[in-house]
Amino acid sequence: MRRIMLVVSYDGTGYSGWALQKSTPNTIEEMLNRAIKAVTGESLKVIGASRTDAGVHAYGNVAVFDTDSSIPGDRFSYALNHVLPSDIRIRQSMEVASDFHPRHCNTEKTYEYRILNTRTEIPTERLYSYHFSMPLDEKRMQKAADCLVGEHDFTSFCNVESQALSHVRTIKDITVRRDGDMVMISVTGNGFLYNMVRIIAGTLILVGRGKMDAADVPAVLEKKDRAAAGPTAPPQGLFLMKYEFPDGIPGALDKNI
Amino acid sequence: MRRIMLVVSYDGTGYSGWALQKSTPNTIEEMLNRAIKAVTGESLKVIGASRTDAGVHAYGNVAVFDTDSSIPGDRFSYALNHVLPSDIRIRQSMEVASDFHPRHCNTEKTYEYRILNTRTEIPTERLYSYHFSMPLDEKRMQKAADCLVGEHDFTSFCNVESQALSHVRTIKDITVRRDGDMVMISVTGNGFLYNMVRIIAGTLILVGRGKMDAADVPAVLEKKDRAAAGPTAPPQGLFLMKYEFPDGIPGALDKNI
Repeated sequence: MRRIMLVVSYDGTGYSGWALQKSTPNTIEEMLNRAIKAVTGESLKVIGASRTDAGVHAYGNVAVFDTDSSIPGDRFSYALNHVLPSDIRIRQSMEVASDFHPRHCNTEKTYEYRILNTRTEIPTERLYSYHFSMPLDEKRMQKAADCLVGEHDFTSFCNVESQALSHVRTIKDITVRRDGDMVMISVTGNGFLYNMVRIIAGTLILVGRGKMDAADVPAVLEKKDRAAAGPTAPPQGLFLMKYEFPDGIPGALDKNI
Repeated sequence: MRRIMLVVSYDGTGYSGWALQKSTPNTIEEMLNRAIKAVTGESLKVIGASRTDAGVHAYGNVAVFDTDSSIPGDRFSYALNHVLPSDIRIRQSMEVASDFHPRHCNTEKTYEYRILNTRTEIPTERLYSYHFSMPLDEKRMQKAADCLVGEHDFTSFCNVESQALSHVRTIKDITVRRDGDMVMISVTGNGFLYNMVRIIAGTLILVGRGKMDAADVPAVLEKKDRAAAGPTAPPQGLFLMKYEFPDGIPGALDKNI
């Protein structure tokens, strides 16, 4: 039995999210389970590093599974891409240590939230950004973002249905940049709460359009109340960009993902 | 009766192209006709500046129509966007002179062809670029592109089914640039033949991967034979970016589109 790790990218538009939920088989997880069955004949379940919500996209989510197949670790990407639908691609595959678990080790992940800031929506961007037509000042947004960097209790930035035992998380970096009409918020941290990045995006948008001051953000954190922060920005603007493993990936031949 | 001009952007993914063809109503043109009927009650047909192929996208195609409606020219965009599907947006609308015709005046249009040059396809880019996995040298591509600038007989770069009387066209500029993994070919000219930009893209890709030399491109033009050029690159990489009217738009209050 060998453990295989996958770096998975997907267009979340057509899916009910990563994880099997309620009675819908229309999840990224289920598509991977089926592709692995088609390739190896084994009925098994992948373990995802991040259970992204419906409509959220990924450039580099991570999953692991255990197999008795003789397919070499680095060849699984080709075999799986052959049977997966075109909106899911395995960017990389590798054999890892049998006790490696992407949720139980030191990781840093980076999300990007994309806001199309034009008067009129651009149809070819509509599935991969949040269209916001009022002017946004990205410098104000960066100032507000700076207040969120570091270790904080992020209760105000967490969906009230969260079942996490602690709401303390550490954000390593938030960068707000503009490339023409697209405003991108990049957030790196070691762990994120339910809807946390989308609530951060919704709050920074309030600041960017002048409805909240950057100087108010520490008080929003302080209140530990979801109602104090801005709205949850819609899912199609969110991309899980990458996972990094600062301590390395045990058992992996290829240390770079 | 007033003539209204629209600047139209669309995601061509779900359509059979701009123009009504065979028996499919699934065209951009038909969606605009229906939206105008819903807004004004008039059964009429828009005249498009460029009849883009199935799957090709537009940021700024142009259309005109004549109406007895009292809706101000600049308000048509709002009214039409209210009833159009989300994959078609009117970016701008304006009243123009009653004899203005976007195909019978001096125009310059710019196309962009986007090539995603990564080992593995990125699902969120798959509908809006051509995935090409072998390395491309964009400097070689630019050298080849330079040979196409100016007035030439572009028979070698034209679909054999073209019914154009002359295949002589003038390309004002071709710029090949790379932004990370995306290679973009931007082509500006006063007129284009059937599939011309997609055949230019397919030929520059041959040069970029080292299967043809830039120095061979003048001979390809010289042959006036479609078989001498590269393949027709697929439609989803092509964007009609903008129309420009160097002599202005007769009757328009707003000269900028």
